[in-house]
Amino acid sequence: MLTIAVDAMGGDNAPECVVEGTIKTLQEAGNRLEVLLIGQKEKVEPLLDQYDTKHLNLRFMHAPEVITMSDVPAIAVKTKQNSSLVRGLILCKEKKADGFVSAGNTGALMAASLFVLGRIPGVLRPTIAAYFPRLSPGLTNVVDVGANVDCKAEHLVQFAEMLTIYQRDAAGMEKPATGLLNIGEEENKGSDLLKQTYSLLKEADKKNRINFIGNIEGNDILSSKASVIVCDGLVGNTLLKFGESIPHFLSSIFKPSIEKLVASGQLDLKAAELVGTAFKAMFLPFDVEKFGGVPFLGVDGISIVGHGRSSAKAIMNMIFMAEHMIDKKVNQHIAEALAEK
Amino acid sequence: MLTIAVDAMGGDNAPECVVEGTIKTLQEAGNRLEVLLIGQKEKVEPLLDQYDTKHLNLRFMHAPEVITMSDVPAIAVKTKQNSSLVRGLILCKEKKADGFVSAGNTGALMAASLFVLGRIPGVLRPTIAAYFPRLSPGLTNVVDVGANVDCKAEHLVQFAEMLTIYQRDAAGMEKPATGLLNIGEEENKGSDLLKQTYSLLKEADKKNRINFIGNIEGNDILSSKASVIVCDGLVGNTLLKFGESIPHFLSSIFKPSIEKLVASGQLDLKAAELVGTAFKAMFLPFDVEKFGGVPFLGVDGISIVGHGRSSAKAIMNMIFMAEHMIDKKVNQHIAEALAEK
Repeated sequence: MLTIAVDAMGGDNAPECVVEGTIKTLQEAGNRLEVLLIGQKEKVEPLLDQYDTKHLNLRFMHAPEVITMSDVPAIAVKTKQNSSLVRGLILCKEKKADGFVSAGNTGALMAASLFVLGRIPGVLRPTIAAYFPRLSPGLTNVVDVGANVDCKAEHLVQFAEMLTIYQRDAAGMEKPATGLLNIGEEENKGSDLLKQTYSLLKEADKKNRINFIGNIEGNDILSSKASVIVCDGLVGNTLLKFGESIPHFLSSIFKPSIEKLVASGQLDLKAAELVGTAFKAMFLPFDVEKFGGVPFLGVDGISIVGHGRSSAKAIMNMIFMAEHMIDKKVNQHIAEALAEK
Repeated sequence: MLTIAVDAMGGDNAPECVVEGTIKTLQEAGNRLEVLLIGQKEKVEPLLDQYDTKHLNLRFMHAPEVITMSDVPAIAVKTKQNSSLVRGLILCKEKKADGFVSAGNTGALMAASLFVLGRIPGVLRPTIAAYFPRLSPGLTNVVDVGANVDCKAEHLVQFAEMLTIYQRDAAGMEKPATGLLNIGEEENKGSDLLKQTYSLLKEADKKNRINFIGNIEGNDILSSKASVIVCDGLVGNTLLKFGESIPHFLSSIFKPSIEKLVASGQLDLKAAELVGTAFKAMFLPFDVEKFGGVPFLGVDGISIVGHGRSSAKAIMNMIFMAEHMIDKKVNQHIAEALAEK
């Protein structure tokens, strides 16, 4: 049975949603999983008391400190060793847990994962990918989305290689297409860094390490052209946050127009509700809940970070993601692939 | 009276839309403007014959060659000297025209503008900004959006300075807020380049050259927090193209849901049409027509490029933008500001 450590204190809706998500996961997973929930006793225990946990594989571990969203990652990791976030990773390091999930401070989790777990041998830099919307079957992951802002060509190529293994193992994708985000499609486009990256990606493709389809542009991101989209952390982070801001921006224009149609009697209330439901559903491909979180690729252990807004459902999906990555031996395959070089 | 040279052959809808837009502009502008329309005689003259141009300040000039969207900019500029695009810029250089507008190949127009017109003294690199959606009054321009992919801090700061002058003069904005696109708000965030840029932007703010509000993130772009958003050409270009792909992506989800509601009798056809109109209107802030085009900031002349999809209305707005930039002496003010340093 696998043991997943869960940060009860991470995220805007913690610890409530984390507790709820953990209970649901265990109810669904039966004897496949055990969860080690870590957090402040005085906050978490009263919540646990609301559930019947007797038959669940749930253990609670007190951690007096909390790393908040406003903590500076590098400092928090050093000064808050008794936080749920650092303790959870130490449990992984000591093999008392097989993986760790948290919806807390991403920077702190990145720093602590690297510090406590270290890197898989051969990994130049661990990275974070994000899920982007797509309409066709498959996955679109953009890598890197903020962990690495000063990237060299070798880093970007390794991100593509690790993400390809992740998509193959964790999502069952045969030969995920890798695209390099650029200002044009032609091979000679972009900065020196992008030209170098292009030629290294071509080499990696020849060695069958990735399936490189060439440069792609901003308007290709949502088009399902590529499953693995490579860019530096500034581009990826900006795109991610820009994309996340779009549903709210558009709703704030659309909602008042629909309200006007209702007020003027041109649309009845019931029809307006149906339209509202369709409108909300349109943003489902933007839904972060579906995937729950993203793994830090390249750290020597399983460390999954969720969105600050994570719901109980997102927490559940993060725990299952950790389980799946362990089952599929994603890290072992990354280590093997990098050793081959 | 100002003379604006117009590339009749530039854009997906050329020459039809360009001719239509030119005629409309002259009908509206009366004796304020003269247009010198440049293009292939055999294509443009039959179109002109459809209009009553007798009382309009319109001259036509034949140019046998055309630079297409698939031409490689640097090569096209050298080998197609008899194209409407190159000829129009030469007319500006020779002071036979006061400005040039084209919805043609952006790369070629950039290369030719730089080659034929040169730079305003003091300008390190000319740049292109793009208009981004916003809900509050004012403008949001992202700079650079593809002209410069390998930027140094000094380049980025100059982009901000030129765009500030453009917004002040051409759009009447008092002290447009400048934000540096980064992965976080804190001063110490991002790559070395971004940290350097941050400190140079702070200096420029102290000298009252710009109004720097600090780092902004991807989710601030649509929030009206900044009017001048600074980033390198890869980030800006990717954001621009990503943003442009969103209306189509969302419509392809929303439209079928509304059609289903109609088919099942839950929404009547008339109401569905009203909803469809509201839905389309939601994307108006994404409408490139409104502004028509963007100027190359920093070239020693007025050179305005429009979207390949430019309509007659966009062409009209581009011609008026050229007029306005000349009237407001934008380039003179840029030269003065850079000389002050």
